Amino acid sequence: MGVGCSSSLPPTVNNPHCSITFPHTSAHTNPTSNHLPINWLARAHLQKPTKSPISKRLFTLDSARKTPTLKCGRTAQMEIEGGSDSKPILDLHSLDDNLVQKMVYDALVWSSLHGLVVGDRNVQRSGTVPGVGMVHAPFALLPTVFPENQWKLACEVAPIFNELVDRVSLDGKFLQESLSRTKKVDAFTSRLLDIHSKMLEINKKEEIRLGLHRSDYMLDEKTKLLLQIELNTISTSFPGLGSVVSELHRSLLKNYGEHLGCDVNCTPSNDAANRFSEALAKAWIEYNNPKAVIMVVVQPEERNMGGHAIAVIYFRAGYAPTDYPSEAEWRARLLMEHSSAIKCPSISYHLTGTKKIQQELAKPNVLEKFIDNKEDIAKLRKCFAGLWSLDDADIVDTAIEKPHLFVMKPQREGGGNNIYGDDVREALLRLRKDGKEQNAAYILMQRIFPTDSATFLVRDGSCHKDHAVSELGIYGAYLRNKDKVIVNERSGYLMRTKVSSSNEGGVAAGFAVLDSLYLT
Amino acid sequence: MGVGCSSSLPPTVNNPHCSITFPHTSAHTNPTSNHLPINWLARAHLQKPTKSPISKRLFTLDSARKTPTLKCGRTAQMEIEGGSDSKPILDLHSLDDNLVQKMVYDALVWSSLHGLVVGDRNVQRSGTVPGVGMVHAPFALLPTVFPENQWKLACEVAPIFNELVDRVSLDGKFLQESLSRTKKVDAFTSRLLDIHSKMLEINKKEEIRLGLHRSDYMLDEKTKLLLQIELNTISTSFPGLGSVVSELHRSLLKNYGEHLGCDVNCTPSNDAANRFSEALAKAWIEYNNPKAVIMVVVQPEERNMGGHAIAVIYFRAGYAPTDYPSEAEWRARLLMEHSSAIKCPSISYHLTGTKKIQQELAKPNVLEKFIDNKEDIAKLRKCFAGLWSLDDADIVDTAIEKPHLFVMKPQREGGGNNIYGDDVREALLRLRKDGKEQNAAYILMQRIFPTDSATFLVRDGSCHKDHAVSELGIYGAYLRNKDKVIVNERSGYLMRTKVSSSNEGGVAAGFAVLDSLYLT
Repeated sequence: MGVGCSSSLPPTVNNPHCSITFPHTSAHTNPTSNHLPINWLARAHLQKPTKSPISKRLFTLDSARKTPTLKCGRTAQMEIEGGSDSKPILDLHSLDDNLVQKMVYDALVWSSLHGLVVGDRNVQRSGTVPGVGMVHAPFALLPTVFPENQWKLACEVAPIFNELVDRVSLDGKFLQESLSRTKKVDAFTSRLLDIHSKMLEINKKEEIRLGLHRSDYMLDEKTKLLLQIELNTISTSFPGLGSVVSELHRSLLKNYGEHLGCDVNCTPSNDAANRFSEALAKAWIEYNNPKAVIMVVVQPEERNMGGHAIAVIYFRAGYAPTDYPSEAEWRARLLMEHSSAIKCPSISYHLTGTKKIQQELAKPNVLEKFIDNKEDIAKLRKCFAGLWSLDDADIVDTAIEKPHLFVMKPQREGGGNNIYGDDVREALLRLRKDGKEQNAAYILMQRIFPTDSATFLVRDGSCHKDHAVSELGIYGAYLRNKDKVIVNERSGYLMRTKVSSSNEGGVAAGFAVLDSLYLT
Repeated sequence: MGVGCSSSLPPTVNNPHCSITFPHTSAHTNPTSNHLPINWLARAHLQKPTKSPISKRLFTLDSARKTPTLKCGRTAQMEIEGGSDSKPILDLHSLDDNLVQKMVYDALVWSSLHGLVVGDRNVQRSGTVPGVGMVHAPFALLPTVFPENQWKLACEVAPIFNELVDRVSLDGKFLQESLSRTKKVDAFTSRLLDIHSKMLEINKKEEIRLGLHRSDYMLDEKTKLLLQIELNTISTSFPGLGSVVSELHRSLLKNYGEHLGCDVNCTPSNDAANRFSEALAKAWIEYNNPKAVIMVVVQPEERNMGGHAIAVIYFRAGYAPTDYPSEAEWRARLLMEHSSAIKCPSISYHLTGTKKIQQELAKPNVLEKFIDNKEDIAKLRKCFAGLWSLDDADIVDTAIEKPHLFVMKPQREGGGNNIYGDDVREALLRLRKDGKEQNAAYILMQRIFPTDSATFLVRDGSCHKDHAVSELGIYGAYLRNKDKVIVNERSGYLMRTKVSSSNEGGVAAGFAVLDSLYLT
């Protein structure tokens, strides 16, 4: 199995060098990474997938103590895959500074040796030349405790969300109508809809459809529910680094587990990068042209189309207005959409990932249009946070009254633009004055108050302890050729953790450290 | 199997944290590394050992052309392990700049992801904090062509050298007598001999003996012989990075092999770090005290003996006079020698690695004292370069006449102190004037003129082409408990390459890039 890129390059999935005209959002301005010159494709196949039986252990972080204590005990209903239920009750251990320092040291060495590195934004060259000015990626020293039942739910719904995206993407009318008012106030969505309209006009069919998604969740403290933040259908980031952090944590738990009283099997292994690569490779196989290549849209200013047939176009850029500084980029996007190449994502998949569609799908009786299985619908609903259009006068009244219970989300991708707290009231009052039209640029969402816990955050070689909140992303890969579903799976996960006080709500990637899970 | 380090640490070979009093030569002053905070122990178990059938291909670097061409063809007697001999004759390919740039880019990304990194000496903190200020280790872009028969010879003699070191180490009288005159002129060797004498006096027996050696060779252009430069018995460096570079080259040949017309199987895989770790772990097992730890002597100023029983002492420092700035270090060395711990190396092993002993062993009828098997003796002799004591008046006359055919080597470890060219004449004339005593501080060695070839050297993110020479090191591990030889093996290799004009003779590590072999 191979995935070619250009005739002068060998057919391997690790070598997708081709690039076209999209000025990728400069990594310097992108808080998501320390301008990382290494994409997840290069990270694929680094990790051996390992079977990880999940055993249940009680694991709490006692944040009241200055030095947190990891308490591990046996739960009443211990379930160990293939094992007995007679594990001994674990003693309590205190996590002393000396042990923390040893673990930090080991973790930093491990990071250096296993590619858990990014370009250091303080070193100019690191943004363009790989292999220089590297620093470890920021990470949480230990995995974050997470309820296993919620993890299982998130895993279960991943393929249902994959299927949902596919079904919604086929309903051009639904997409156009749902976004018709957003179109008027959001220039970017409008341009995407224009491309989508043109495809509808010529009745363009995408027989092979590839989705590499990530559904993001937070655990709501009060309700103990795992609520969806958003569903990303384009340029889903961090499958590579996320996978490596899980391995780091598994390595630490393996070496220090006895001292911590923890079980390495409570941290699930994570092969998101490999799963995504395999899905890309399988899409290439479905395209069935051995000379065709996979094109990755990433680089600024590079306009080389190469003259090669393109089997798959993977968008690592193209999701933000700044990725289209001129008409040339829009023409290129249209050209790609016209082509027979498999787009990841197609314009329909891209639009299906908009917040407005997320909100539309949360309306009563909408999921039912796309999914038959009632159990599946119930599972998806369970993850839906409260989502409302600003046309809903009652909810707007409530939000003006209790703004801290809501988040206002603009249609724009990328996070960091959300409105919280008293700003919600102000924004709603201003919109009320300005007239209805601008309502469509936002949705209102229930504010999630995630559980916070003591965490050791490691950045730039230093460790500090703070209270932090986490966001869990579940990757999903979907590949379909006509009626044949070739891939529909959960493909690993991403846990990001940030200091609770560092900004309001959400886990803006720029402030977050990479993390993994400790299931209880 | 586990190797403990301290009671607060888990029993794993990857965690030898203990350290004692030896001020390690500051990495800043050590040209061997860009003050690398990661030792090879941490790098162990990174590589999957892979079987590598060696197939023979013709591979030449046409250095007359500005852009070198890799010519690959079939040799008359092609031998492919377990394969057929019907491989097609390969076409010629030119190595164009574009391809080189692609390979350099891939190699740099690969380095970042696979731990082929060192601390950047331009970043102060990188010497003390792991995970920050990293840069890829300097490497040759492609492996260096090397004759397979010489490689096989070097591999074959590795266990014989291991055995030789062990036998010589048991002959205390031989060591003392051979080094008796060196003792008078070399203060460092003198101190080592003092410790050795004390052990002889108390009739100290080392029943479990562990050696982690590296025998270094250069290929002599005229004679086409592989001649031994030296045999290292203490602190043998680079098993970790050396292993990773072989994997880098194998990865490049795998991806670009068709374009280069090369076969990945011509580059042997290399698991030196794992082999050495396993030998250490096996030594720990032989010691047979589950609570005992492995102590690694590395860190400056750290005087923590930990209070734990020590099963194995691994010296990553202690080979240079600067490692013993006060009597405290010598007392510690003596204490360790007195102890029941397995020393790697013992004082006897250490002394056996001196240049004087190398020269003594090269004398007629000396090998025969230690080795019975005549074939083994013949193989060792084949690798011996001409080696002479300065007491040999005839050879000194010849060297004064033709100084460019000789190298003068002081007893001091670490390289970089050798005397070449006209300086040999001057030094010999000066010694002749000063009297016989100082003769013992040096040996004379046949100057080896290694084959030079065009090479792409990659440093600090940039690649440049130059003529270069290489030095091949073969690692050997030896473990014995009384009459039982537990390990006696070749344990991987190290290839270092440097620009031929960068200094005279030898491959001083500070100027060299890491490399691997392409066997023909």
